[in-house]
Amino acid sequence: MKVYNFNAGPAMLPAAVMERAQKEFCNYADSGCGIMEHSHRHKIFEAVLNRANENIREIMNVPENYDIVYIQGGASMQFAMVPMNLALPGKPMEFADTGTWSSKAIKEAKLFGEVKVIASSKEDKYTYIPDPASMHPSDDASFFHITSNNTIFGTQYQSFPECKCPMVADMSSDIMSRPVDVSKFGLIYAGAQKNLGPAGLAVVIIRKDLAERNPANVPTILRYSTYTQNNSLYNTPPTFGIYMVSLVTDWVKDQGGLTVIEANNSKKAEMLYAAIDASEGFYRNPVKADSRSKMNVIWRLPTEELEAEFVKESVAAGMLGLKGHRSVGGIRASIYNAVTLEGVEKLVDFMEKFRKNH
Amino acid sequence: MKVYNFNAGPAMLPAAVMERAQKEFCNYADSGCGIMEHSHRHKIFEAVLNRANENIREIMNVPENYDIVYIQGGASMQFAMVPMNLALPGKPMEFADTGTWSSKAIKEAKLFGEVKVIASSKEDKYTYIPDPASMHPSDDASFFHITSNNTIFGTQYQSFPECKCPMVADMSSDIMSRPVDVSKFGLIYAGAQKNLGPAGLAVVIIRKDLAERNPANVPTILRYSTYTQNNSLYNTPPTFGIYMVSLVTDWVKDQGGLTVIEANNSKKAEMLYAAIDASEGFYRNPVKADSRSKMNVIWRLPTEELEAEFVKESVAAGMLGLKGHRSVGGIRASIYNAVTLEGVEKLVDFMEKFRKNH
Repeated sequence: MKVYNFNAGPAMLPAAVMERAQKEFCNYADSGCGIMEHSHRHKIFEAVLNRANENIREIMNVPENYDIVYIQGGASMQFAMVPMNLALPGKPMEFADTGTWSSKAIKEAKLFGEVKVIASSKEDKYTYIPDPASMHPSDDASFFHITSNNTIFGTQYQSFPECKCPMVADMSSDIMSRPVDVSKFGLIYAGAQKNLGPAGLAVVIIRKDLAERNPANVPTILRYSTYTQNNSLYNTPPTFGIYMVSLVTDWVKDQGGLTVIEANNSKKAEMLYAAIDASEGFYRNPVKADSRSKMNVIWRLPTEELEAEFVKESVAAGMLGLKGHRSVGGIRASIYNAVTLEGVEKLVDFMEKFRKNH
Repeated sequence: MKVYNFNAGPAMLPAAVMERAQKEFCNYADSGCGIMEHSHRHKIFEAVLNRANENIREIMNVPENYDIVYIQGGASMQFAMVPMNLALPGKPMEFADTGTWSSKAIKEAKLFGEVKVIASSKEDKYTYIPDPASMHPSDDASFFHITSNNTIFGTQYQSFPECKCPMVADMSSDIMSRPVDVSKFGLIYAGAQKNLGPAGLAVVIIRKDLAERNPANVPTILRYSTYTQNNSLYNTPPTFGIYMVSLVTDWVKDQGGLTVIEANNSKKAEMLYAAIDASEGFYRNPVKADSRSKMNVIWRLPTEELEAEFVKESVAAGMLGLKGHRSVGGIRASIYNAVTLEGVEKLVDFMEKFRKNH
């Protein structure tokens, strides 16, 4: 049975990417061994790394005054590295709190200085993104941190705040899902395991001046400058993960880049929200209309028993990963770049049948 | 042409492991997708993680009062995490300095408290391991840190010091190459990319009481307790890397465990050292006889020009990775567990022919 994968992350990767990686797994570029068996200092891997860099720079139109680096530890490591590297003495770190991942980033920053939460939807159970135009980070803040898409609560920024201090964005769950003006940000980070590749690394896009803030007491491996000054090769990088990022970004380019990707993502999300909205209240999406995520669509059913039954029957029908996050329950379909329109059609069909049967 | 891989890390993996991973790359356990596309919280991945844990515990005979965890960032991250987590106020951190990696660990520890180097072979260009019986770490030190094998200088501990404070060992380059009494150590860490799997994670074996030292100011992701309390699942772990560790450790068990592995490694190393020693000074290994590594065999040729020629001709003959570390030059053959006797025979043949021709 063909399986449709709606995992929230680690998530489905494009079928063409998986097939190519499988094909050359034991013999990369006719070198006689797999890319994961090559030295990170060999020209064969260097070409892979440079390809990933060039692809990301081209696809996201990353300006020349930004570096692109790969850091192990995913977004959770960035929750620590951002304040360790960017906190300036006497200048607050400011945050918008739009869910679990924002809250975790806030918690870690408190170890390194004063934190101000200047916008939050916590009191409304994170059911929306506060109006970005109403967010006013201080001009002299160390930085202002947002979470561009919230996997657990199914919300996503549709526009970004104006910000004179460096704006830092956790884009783990929607990077490369739509065009973004990188020059508005000081630092963008994203755990790879949704839209970029396998778990085990974060892609970090950092304005060069910010990489130089390094307080003296930060260990070498936790300094951004260690990565920017060594093209991510100070220590052994996660070579296979970077290779997969190079393949996924090749695929994004093959698709036609972010304008095409965004159009596909919009189409998938619209189909799914339309199915929810047309269900006469059987399926309920709790998110404010202007904050709905195109990456993670969440919904509730009339009872938790029906939700459990929905998950059970969906698995039997060949659909993976539809159970909502364990902290909130309900149903969640993660429809990242690699999820096909066919997969969403299959899900919508299943939803309609399930509703008629229950 | 068949290629023989002597890379220092990332290194060759067992052929059987690579073939199995390739076969099930896109469809793991008939689940319809690859293991890297599965959620880290799904029972399919949980079984992989538990399998890796159980294999390591069995192979290394890890006592019950130790936890086994997987942490991103390789050994370089451990250089920071060890002192961040284990430094006790007023108690020095003690080190034996046996090479580049020891020195890097020492440098990072200095950020977190008083460091004492109680044994060193630095003045003799790291050509030997100081007699472990002569190392006397303080009973009340925060910890005593050694590097069990030194990839760059080709040295390896043949026995371990007695130590009443927790002994911490960087075993990145010789873990699972021979039986070791884990109970003599407080913490063992190893970047995976030599004997355990691909780059992108370290395996950490930690005595339970040490995981609880956590100073209050250490970020969540950098605390050992975060990993031990959550079976390495606090955040998304490097799932594919852990899967590869599970396959490699399956393979170690299939070989007959560490006694057999050690015998094979000894045989390979003896062949190579014998070829060097029988070369009438053409090949010179600078390491003191009692400190020679069975994992990384280094040697010099009469001139740097001949060394360059040796590397060039070896590549043409299908042998990868024989160039010495860029910091020291010369030749290095890394003969980790996965390197076959056939590969070493091929190399020894090549060395003899090269000597006759030059």
